Amino acid sequence: MSRGLLPSSQKSSMLEKIASPKDIKNLTTEELGQLAAEIRQKIIQTVEKNGGHLSSNLGTVELILALHRAFDAPKDKLIFDVGHQCYAHKIITGRAERFDTLRQFGGISGFSDPSESEYDAIYAGHSSTSLSQALGMCRARDLKGEKYHVVAVIGDGALSGGMAFEALNDIGNSDTRLIIVLNDNEMSISKNVGGVSRHLCRLRLSRSYINIKKGLRRFIFALPLVGKPIRKICEFFKRQAVKLVIAGNIFDSLGVKYVGAFDGHNICELTRAFERAKQLDGPVLLHILTKKGKGYTPAEESPDIYHGIRKGFKNGNTAFSARAGDKLCELAEQDDRIVAVTAAMKEGTGLVRFSERFTKRFFDVGICEQHAVTMCAGMAAVGFKPYFCVYSTFLQRAFDQISNDVCLPGLPVTLLVDRAGLVGRDGETHHGIFDVPYLSCLPNITIYTPKDLADLEAILDFSKGFGRPLAVRYENEYFGEFDVHGEIIPGKWEVLSEGAEVNIIAYGGRMLNVAKKAMEILKEKGLDIGIINAAFIKPFDTGLLENLKGACFVLEQCPPSGGLYGALCGYACERGLPLRIYLLSLPDSYITFGSCEQLLESLGLSAEGVAKRILSKLVKDNGK
Amino acid sequence: MSRGLLPSSQKSSMLEKIASPKDIKNLTTEELGQLAAEIRQKIIQTVEKNGGHLSSNLGTVELILALHRAFDAPKDKLIFDVGHQCYAHKIITGRAERFDTLRQFGGISGFSDPSESEYDAIYAGHSSTSLSQALGMCRARDLKGEKYHVVAVIGDGALSGGMAFEALNDIGNSDTRLIIVLNDNEMSISKNVGGVSRHLCRLRLSRSYINIKKGLRRFIFALPLVGKPIRKICEFFKRQAVKLVIAGNIFDSLGVKYVGAFDGHNICELTRAFERAKQLDGPVLLHILTKKGKGYTPAEESPDIYHGIRKGFKNGNTAFSARAGDKLCELAEQDDRIVAVTAAMKEGTGLVRFSERFTKRFFDVGICEQHAVTMCAGMAAVGFKPYFCVYSTFLQRAFDQISNDVCLPGLPVTLLVDRAGLVGRDGETHHGIFDVPYLSCLPNITIYTPKDLADLEAILDFSKGFGRPLAVRYENEYFGEFDVHGEIIPGKWEVLSEGAEVNIIAYGGRMLNVAKKAMEILKEKGLDIGIINAAFIKPFDTGLLENLKGACFVLEQCPPSGGLYGALCGYACERGLPLRIYLLSLPDSYITFGSCEQLLESLGLSAEGVAKRILSKLVKDNGK
Repeated sequence: MSRGLLPSSQKSSMLEKIASPKDIKNLTTEELGQLAAEIRQKIIQTVEKNGGHLSSNLGTVELILALHRAFDAPKDKLIFDVGHQCYAHKIITGRAERFDTLRQFGGISGFSDPSESEYDAIYAGHSSTSLSQALGMCRARDLKGEKYHVVAVIGDGALSGGMAFEALNDIGNSDTRLIIVLNDNEMSISKNVGGVSRHLCRLRLSRSYINIKKGLRRFIFALPLVGKPIRKICEFFKRQAVKLVIAGNIFDSLGVKYVGAFDGHNICELTRAFERAKQLDGPVLLHILTKKGKGYTPAEESPDIYHGIRKGFKNGNTAFSARAGDKLCELAEQDDRIVAVTAAMKEGTGLVRFSERFTKRFFDVGICEQHAVTMCAGMAAVGFKPYFCVYSTFLQRAFDQISNDVCLPGLPVTLLVDRAGLVGRDGETHHGIFDVPYLSCLPNITIYTPKDLADLEAILDFSKGFGRPLAVRYENEYFGEFDVHGEIIPGKWEVLSEGAEVNIIAYGGRMLNVAKKAMEILKEKGLDIGIINAAFIKPFDTGLLENLKGACFVLEQCPPSGGLYGALCGYACERGLPLRIYLLSLPDSYITFGSCEQLLESLGLSAEGVAKRILSKLVKDNGK
Repeated sequence: MSRGLLPSSQKSSMLEKIASPKDIKNLTTEELGQLAAEIRQKIIQTVEKNGGHLSSNLGTVELILALHRAFDAPKDKLIFDVGHQCYAHKIITGRAERFDTLRQFGGISGFSDPSESEYDAIYAGHSSTSLSQALGMCRARDLKGEKYHVVAVIGDGALSGGMAFEALNDIGNSDTRLIIVLNDNEMSISKNVGGVSRHLCRLRLSRSYINIKKGLRRFIFALPLVGKPIRKICEFFKRQAVKLVIAGNIFDSLGVKYVGAFDGHNICELTRAFERAKQLDGPVLLHILTKKGKGYTPAEESPDIYHGIRKGFKNGNTAFSARAGDKLCELAEQDDRIVAVTAAMKEGTGLVRFSERFTKRFFDVGICEQHAVTMCAGMAAVGFKPYFCVYSTFLQRAFDQISNDVCLPGLPVTLLVDRAGLVGRDGETHHGIFDVPYLSCLPNITIYTPKDLADLEAILDFSKGFGRPLAVRYENEYFGEFDVHGEIIPGKWEVLSEGAEVNIIAYGGRMLNVAKKAMEILKEKGLDIGIINAAFIKPFDTGLLENLKGACFVLEQCPPSGGLYGALCGYACERGLPLRIYLLSLPDSYITFGSCEQLLESLGLSAEGVAKRILSKLVKDNGK
């Protein structure tokens, strides 16, 4: 039996007593241990059923219990970076009973979400934002003369994002009371920095490292960890460039007091550390060492499965990701100017095989999308063909770089925009629904959406010789192969199903699939509908559009503004085309989590919903 | 007479001999000195006439001469971060004769521009990209097995951008031969870090700082600077948080060898340093100390005028910026929850008065737009009303943060989007032409463009109580007050001039001014045109739109896709409005530099151009 699993007789006996974080303040060490075990069990059971982030949440159970013992949320603000490691926090802040609805439509969000509980201080979802949010809160608090604590919990991976450094730089100048909890779980971004990690270990133990201000020194020596074998501490300093920052005295240099490292699974030690941090005046960083997958035998026995940033973040990779990775290997075999770049998403974007086969032509730059895009531009400027494999939602970080560094010079960088469109259970912050608007407005870019794997292969073959900026966007779900596969010609669409006076224009497997089913429903009602695959979003097929008549319905996973619909309507208006064009898009609001089917259904974009809306429009038209 | 100005008899005698960088390789020290003086003179004369970046370019003359002596451009790649400090580079790479066309329509660009010369390795314009570009080039070079040098010249200000840190993190892991030239001209981002700078100075002199690898130590001690008074070196370490990175051994820790500091105005010393850097295997950073405005008496005598990041970058501030700053002071007087935030653009965005009057409620976060936006979100989350004053083009950096951290929670952050639309002589990388597309697609945001100063004051008054995300975008030019000033109601437009069957829909003073003039031209030809001020881009005025008839022309400084035009056409199509809507926008391409009038003229968007295009459309319509 693993440490996390209890005999059924003991199940939830402690957890049932926790109505709010207040109830954990006076628990004994033994009771806390039992509570932690029960929370782990709940997390494991729920994630096994619903999916989600397992290892990161198992690693933070004691950390979160200690935070709630030392601080008074919601008065004190607890900010979890990315927000994907706060399941234990959710469980002890009144959401234990509903926790089995995690990531289910209408249930508990997988990220921190203020609309769900006053204990969730802020929305999160993307990496490296917590320090900026926390500093903003501290500055507001100080101006108001209020007294509460602001705590940012940030992982070592998130700390490598440039934005976190921007915030640290500012925090160090601020003199504000801000408590940073560095949750160091040894997530590896970059390998092969062995020499550097030895250097780190030396630094870690050097006098300058320990020799901080007097009070702080007392603070450190009063803590139980000092005295433990040095080797144990050193173990934690390896494999990651960002850790150099940790050990390189950079926090102290920036004006942020560094204290640590603490055992992240010792609740009493952590509570004491937090209590003392509360008494400090300026910004302080507590370095906490945690273990991924802590307390769950399968994770401890098979660390490789739980290895890697955001592993399991998106339930592994998808048919499209896998095929993209395989196809890139094939292309790289033929052309040694092809390189693959990822921002800490090697597994998710299907690049594991590529990384093993083309070690020197594979670059994982960490959670640094801005740097990734511009680094690709640098490579392309001297004749290479970089492919940046990235999730649509994370590519948002690099909008400026895509414009100035790639599109302006017109460099042959290919963006493989994974998880485009709705992503399902990760919800609001993760849907890839803005890339069509924010990419379409940029000059010199070509945007294509493969409907199936054959299309994906074809566009990748095409990309070899294209020589210009290209975005290939594909979804997390695969809906099988379609029958029609036209030639890849920029600005050329495919007619999947000939229509007479009514056509659905859609792109991507999901919406084309909805279109096909809607077509069948409408056929039963005696209505013939055509389907057009608008695979090229930019440039689009003006010739085909000009030949259309009657009504067409643009079906897209995109907000109403800035998508294909606006572009088509603009073209039609400008030329006075005799077309009625209707929109079946996402609403102008953020979209919650749930299965993609549930989301489509709720938004009136299921096949039935679409068929119904088309019918009602046509009836209205005829009534005019 | 200032050091930079020579008697007219000596004018350009050296410069005339320099046809390419090869010609400077064998000059004597004296000749180099004269050449530097002549280049300074040329820069001063040209910038006085054409505007541009004076102090940064005066500071890099010797640095650039030394670079070209030590390296063989264009084979070796010289990358200038931001690209606004490479005038001397342009002058000695065959562009001396045309240099008087600097920033003139059709002339020499104020930034580095590969379309202009093979010596310009890459496009630049926005901060902190050079390290990523350089690393990309190095990796490509290494894969190809080629032998050339890649040099990134980056300022201390640009180094504070998070993206530069992302790149450093990756460079340190790369083992590639990359030469970083840190141009440290003591530009101050943050004040009041005196205690920290003393700490820095200590670090600077500590053993760990000097104690690098053996070869490198020899390298350092062979250089002439070591031995000079310590105090002289220490002088340079003050006032700036990012310098802590410099001195805190962080470069060494990250695996980037640190060497310096060198006198940035001693060509021979610099040349020697570069020559030796060429012999190193891995990445190296050379710390060069330069003086802003070097060699120009007015700058040396009035350092305050040349103080501050990007001072003079945009020719000081504008009528809109100044009024925004003043109005913010007025609002802040009434409401102590109002704070102002800038990303190193205090002067440009008109915040000097605010910063002096509300010291504690003013935050300059450095060149860190991402952090700025999310820090604002943190403040707003606890009841404050932050105003982020930022140029449209730089706000592109924070697209993801605007979406996830501000719009998703619907927080009352006001973005004062300065320099929206065409900006003129800064060109391609600086026009604020994408904000309408990239902001419009985001849910929960309201977007407004004041046509004049009264509108600006009115929307700022309105913003106090609005309580939601708001973007107020205004231009660099002011076209005087308009006659009509309607009430500020989101989604409500103004009719500036009643039209019958033809209307121009525009927003912002520049295009409304063009519309007015076009209206007059068309009146003379017997055509009555109405003008509608579409101040609210989101939400737009559906009521007014539904009542329009005939033809309307949407006039906007925005690419064809994602602007107001597409949104209006979409609405009109969806509802089958009996309207013909035509587009008069920017083309789907990057826009060059020149005066805004020249640019509008060249794009067919002058009053005459617009009148002509309207007439021709209407004639065509009637012909149908």
